[in-house]
Amino acid sequence: MVLAYHPKPGTTPTRYPHRARYDSETVHQILDEALTCHLGYIRAGRPVVLPTMHVRCGETLYIHGSSGSGPMLAAKAEGLPVCVTATLVDGLVLARSAMHHSLNYRSAVVMGTAHLVDDREQKLQVLRALLDHIRPGRSVDCRPPTRRELAATAVLALGLAEVSAKVRSGGPVDDPEDCALPHWAGVVPLTLTAQTPQPAVDLDLATPLPTYLR
Amino acid sequence: MVLAYHPKPGTTPTRYPHRARYDSETVHQILDEALTCHLGYIRAGRPVVLPTMHVRCGETLYIHGSSGSGPMLAAKAEGLPVCVTATLVDGLVLARSAMHHSLNYRSAVVMGTAHLVDDREQKLQVLRALLDHIRPGRSVDCRPPTRRELAATAVLALGLAEVSAKVRSGGPVDDPEDCALPHWAGVVPLTLTAQTPQPAVDLDLATPLPTYLR
Repeated sequence: MVLAYHPKPGTTPTRYPHRARYDSETVHQILDEALTCHLGYIRAGRPVVLPTMHVRCGETLYIHGSSGSGPMLAAKAEGLPVCVTATLVDGLVLARSAMHHSLNYRSAVVMGTAHLVDDREQKLQVLRALLDHIRPGRSVDCRPPTRRELAATAVLALGLAEVSAKVRSGGPVDDPEDCALPHWAGVVPLTLTAQTPQPAVDLDLATPLPTYLR
Repeated sequence: MVLAYHPKPGTTPTRYPHRARYDSETVHQILDEALTCHLGYIRAGRPVVLPTMHVRCGETLYIHGSSGSGPMLAAKAEGLPVCVTATLVDGLVLARSAMHHSLNYRSAVVMGTAHLVDDREQKLQVLRALLDHIRPGRSVDCRPPTRRELAATAVLALGLAEVSAKVRSGGPVDDPEDCALPHWAGVVPLTLTAQTPQPAVDLDLATPLPTYLR
């Protein structure tokens, strides 16, 4: 089922509105493929943007961090107004004209008030999901957190309500009168590629590489 | 010469302070290698984070966008308080314990008030630098912007004063008592890789691939 988010003033782009997407399939795909996101919030009246890791479970986006970190402390009382943006860069778009250069990308922007997850079991579930977001299967192949470790970790939950995605794909779009110019035009695809896993220096060499890393 | 930025309350991390860097070499390298950044600002009292492209020239970071876009309009009068963060993801760090999983990354955070660049010549210079940031040499191998195109583009300038970088590298750091656990531990390096350039569908096939794309 494709659920559609409702465009709101905060999630309606002023530029390139034709690139906007509000269907859950696109939004979910971007949030699920992106390993990192950028968390924006207001600290002492000023904007702050920090890179962090997230995971989506259903219609909730979870962000984790240390219990003592700025956004986690700020969220304690009534929640924290945030904007979480995840961006995937797919390619350089080179046009004949300077102005039509662009980037192929997919980004999802989630706005709202994030709340701390207090429930211990829910927190454990989210941490497992975060591990499986890194590589599916990892959560059952590591030592689970102790009670003390769990207390040192905070999890923010943000509902997917005020959400939009923006997608640019395909080749350059030059003005017709520029197409005969002698400049190369096209796309240089970019991919985030996993290289050969490097064992920790103190890893027992008899430990096999797990299938989810092959 | 290595210039050092001065840690300020806004750029002093509350967590993992040993990962913080304030030398210009590290900050410049991250800003120069990153193709995109995330621009945070406050709109109607709420945080907004948008992906965009940037270029560093000396001790100034430039962001470009359409003249009619939100942050550009907001910056018109007295400048716009922003936080610009560029993040490079270098690898997945898998530890034996769930809690010591991490990411190898390099991020630079620049805070301050961004101002619109009004001077026509300076704007042209920045746009050239933006093109050369995509691929060095591109700015002289495309049609320069017309007066009308230039007016449709806005450039924000942000001085590198309140700046910090954060760097995590190397393998997992497990607690000693976990090292004998049977879980694989190590790093999966991640790299943003350029694939074979794809010519535009309407490109004259006699147009050679420029050396800067090979």
